[in-house]
Amino acid sequence: MTATFEPTARTKVRRKADRARYDAGTVHAIFDEALLAHVAFVVDGQPWIVPMTYARVDGTLYFHGARANHALKSLAAGAPVCISVTLLDGLVLSRSSFHHSMNYRSVVAFGTGYEVVDPEEKLAAVQAVVEHVVPGNTSVVRAPTGAELRTTLVVAVPLVEASAKVRTGPPVEEPDDLALPIWAGVLPLHTVPGEPVPDADVLAGVTPPRHVTAYARPAPVH
Amino acid sequence: MTATFEPTARTKVRRKADRARYDAGTVHAIFDEALLAHVAFVVDGQPWIVPMTYARVDGTLYFHGARANHALKSLAAGAPVCISVTLLDGLVLSRSSFHHSMNYRSVVAFGTGYEVVDPEEKLAAVQAVVEHVVPGNTSVVRAPTGAELRTTLVVAVPLVEASAKVRTGPPVEEPDDLALPIWAGVLPLHTVPGEPVPDADVLAGVTPPRHVTAYARPAPVH
Repeated sequence: MTATFEPTARTKVRRKADRARYDAGTVHAIFDEALLAHVAFVVDGQPWIVPMTYARVDGTLYFHGARANHALKSLAAGAPVCISVTLLDGLVLSRSSFHHSMNYRSVVAFGTGYEVVDPEEKLAAVQAVVEHVVPGNTSVVRAPTGAELRTTLVVAVPLVEASAKVRTGPPVEEPDDLALPIWAGVLPLHTVPGEPVPDADVLAGVTPPRHVTAYARPAPVH
Repeated sequence: MTATFEPTARTKVRRKADRARYDAGTVHAIFDEALLAHVAFVVDGQPWIVPMTYARVDGTLYFHGARANHALKSLAAGAPVCISVTLLDGLVLSRSSFHHSMNYRSVVAFGTGYEVVDPEEKLAAVQAVVEHVVPGNTSVVRAPTGAELRTTLVVAVPLVEASAKVRTGPPVEEPDDLALPIWAGVLPLHTVPGEPVPDADVLAGVTPPRHVTAYARPAPVH
């Protein structure tokens, strides 16, 4: 597995290059914390984006869905793809409109996918997606049947060309603005769970497991 | 302004069509609550995605950034663009791996942009972006100077072709799975602010305004 992604013409960060990160640790951690990727492909010269969940297993991303899903079919056919994941960590409030910004961690990856056909790899991939979103849940829910797996299209996209961009810290200000009696700083943003809402048919006495009631992103390390 | 977007070959929701929404009220509310859009364009047949913030003013989206920003330059030149905004409302936990899902509200829009050159419209657009992210803040911070506006590229994308997709509610289950003693339901997710972190140089006695300490998405109606 890649320890560092080699910057390419497509992944070398040109704007605000000091925010660039090419190490696999940073890239993987962003994929692991985020829940959704925005996935772009081209149809007749027109860009399309589809939001999708996924799992990262070592150096590969897995996506899955129904066989009729045209975005997935496009990926499975090897169309060039751009995958973007963004975690918004805070709003950067400056003393001036101009210097407002955001603290974020983002990844962009370019590549091509292929359909996963091996039944064991398919099963591992779809279970990895559930584990990515709700760590611990595959150990308590019913596993996929053979029929369910056959109706599922699983696509792998090896992470070959990727880079991360990270902004942290306070606003950058014009020196003259520092004398203004205006508050400036960072308003952190967090994704937090509410109270679990049980399905109407949950059997009496069945309560949500701890990995649901104690849910957090990034996932706690077990 | 459009009250309902006419579904086109590109925006008509084909998969899970019962989740489709074409009314401008739904589309606009999703744009207004989200903070980031993922914006895709094509370079030499390759899709690119850039995450960007924005503002919606009536039926137009505004993006801005430095003149050297290649994504913005591409938009300003009228490249076909796909804009995707996704709000993740909850994790849908089923009794089976197969029926796990997510509750979300998403919009996809296709169109082309143009550079905003009129100084008044540019000023209104950049201030609208700050107001979109932190409602109330343009009334307390220093407004952009003419020089700052000249270094800023502002792009407008009229919302002509757009659709929303919304999933709500509990998991869809296989009838046989309802007898399983497994918890199922929805884990809601919320974006919430932490405590404001003041910049090191904030003048003594200057405290964060109420629109910062009471920050919430969607923005409270004033």
